[in-house]
Amino acid sequence: MAYSNRYNNNNNSQSYAPSAPSFPGEQSQYTSAAAAAPNYYAHHSQSYPYGTTTTSSSSNSAYGSYGQQYPPSSSSEFPAGTHPDVIRSFQMVDRDRSGFIDENELQQALSSTYNRFSLRTIRLLIFLFKNPNAPLTIGPTEFAALWTCLGQWQAIFQRYDKDRSGKIDLFELRDALYGIGYAVPASILQLLVSKYDDGSGRRVELNFDSFVECGLIVKGLTDKFKEKDTRYTGSATLSYDTFMSMVIPFLVSYN
Amino acid sequence: MAYSNRYNNNNNSQSYAPSAPSFPGEQSQYTSAAAAAPNYYAHHSQSYPYGTTTTSSSSNSAYGSYGQQYPPSSSSEFPAGTHPDVIRSFQMVDRDRSGFIDENELQQALSSTYNRFSLRTIRLLIFLFKNPNAPLTIGPTEFAALWTCLGQWQAIFQRYDKDRSGKIDLFELRDALYGIGYAVPASILQLLVSKYDDGSGRRVELNFDSFVECGLIVKGLTDKFKEKDTRYTGSATLSYDTFMSMVIPFLVSYN
Repeated sequence: MAYSNRYNNNNNSQSYAPSAPSFPGEQSQYTSAAAAAPNYYAHHSQSYPYGTTTTSSSSNSAYGSYGQQYPPSSSSEFPAGTHPDVIRSFQMVDRDRSGFIDENELQQALSSTYNRFSLRTIRLLIFLFKNPNAPLTIGPTEFAALWTCLGQWQAIFQRYDKDRSGKIDLFELRDALYGIGYAVPASILQLLVSKYDDGSGRRVELNFDSFVECGLIVKGLTDKFKEKDTRYTGSATLSYDTFMSMVIPFLVSYN
Repeated sequence: MAYSNRYNNNNNSQSYAPSAPSFPGEQSQYTSAAAAAPNYYAHHSQSYPYGTTTTSSSSNSAYGSYGQQYPPSSSSEFPAGTHPDVIRSFQMVDRDRSGFIDENELQQALSSTYNRFSLRTIRLLIFLFKNPNAPLTIGPTEFAALWTCLGQWQAIFQRYDKDRSGKIDLFELRDALYGIGYAVPASILQLLVSKYDDGSGRRVELNFDSFVECGLIVKGLTDKFKEKDTRYTGSATLSYDTFMSMVIPFLVSYN
């Protein structure tokens, strides 16, 4: 399996060898690379080192991130080495053997393994994993990539859900997002979780579905921003049009 | 009534005298000012002059735009000169006389005058018009400002709904958004309206609710971007944190 670096940027010259995601506080075995990289996304995480997180995927292009060249021919077959369970989950819902599944079918395909995801989360998954050249459906390659991502995120979630309650709180969310590669300022996290606040005064807790939703929002916006920050400075100069075209697809897909 | 300029920016030295919104193609009576201003938001509208649109409000601060100083004491009373119908609509739903109404009450208050707005549109209205220092509720001043805005947008909508069908198409949407002060590139508009596409192949048409929703998205994002483009160049340099804190509240409020 090929691994891409923390930010899943195939064009980034800092490509790391495969490694397990590092725990915050652990010395990364890529300290030299980590130390050389600007403290960009991690600068708000004062107690964390600039960690590396690897996100494995069957192929470099499997994530279908914005800006990546996505070879159309690869999306109609499962990547070599895809687990039979993954193939089975896909085929179970792709009854007409069209090779593509829509949001309802995706929701169903994932429900054999995960608690049912909300349609909002499903739409975000499709938005971020779809072939940029294809309509809002998911084919085998996208499904395999999405499945891999969810598996990793579930491992991270479970690491922080220490009491196995199926929920994590705001602090654990921060750590978990860091575990999947994103250092998010506390103020942004407060905003993110505000919608899960039931107003009861009890502290906010997120189940896995909500965690995935938060992760996809952070991933999607961060990846888009990074495309514009080609010199990895932590800032980007955006024209009005560029700004609007980065954000509006997100808003539109989110419903 | 005091008028603020096209971009509702109290700090903009180009304040215009009151005028009716200009039709695209008409010579604006502020041609000299318009010619002097950089062709910022209108540069994609090749056939349109850099028009001015006035948005009237009972007071300069009534729109509650981001970055404006919002005097807390003014939000508990209706501005002088508020139409009795507006006051009545508010009081009808503020049964406990708390002075604030929530999203369901706002939906109800507006339904006496407009076809029922979707909760999504209501939430956007609250998000953009609320007192920045207050929770997600609307007081008299905010309600009056919101009401005024809707009245103007309805006038613009009706101008472009020439056959009185209650719907406008993509081209009319572009003109109508320009009429309320925003020059939106065609590609962005395509994205915006894609969610209203029922997949039937018929061209997409928007009712007033959907038009307001689009307008609020465009208004909200554009106003936020403009806060960062203080030199009015059409570009802004944003840090990662700033970018996230501009966009995520929008995403969160949009559900």
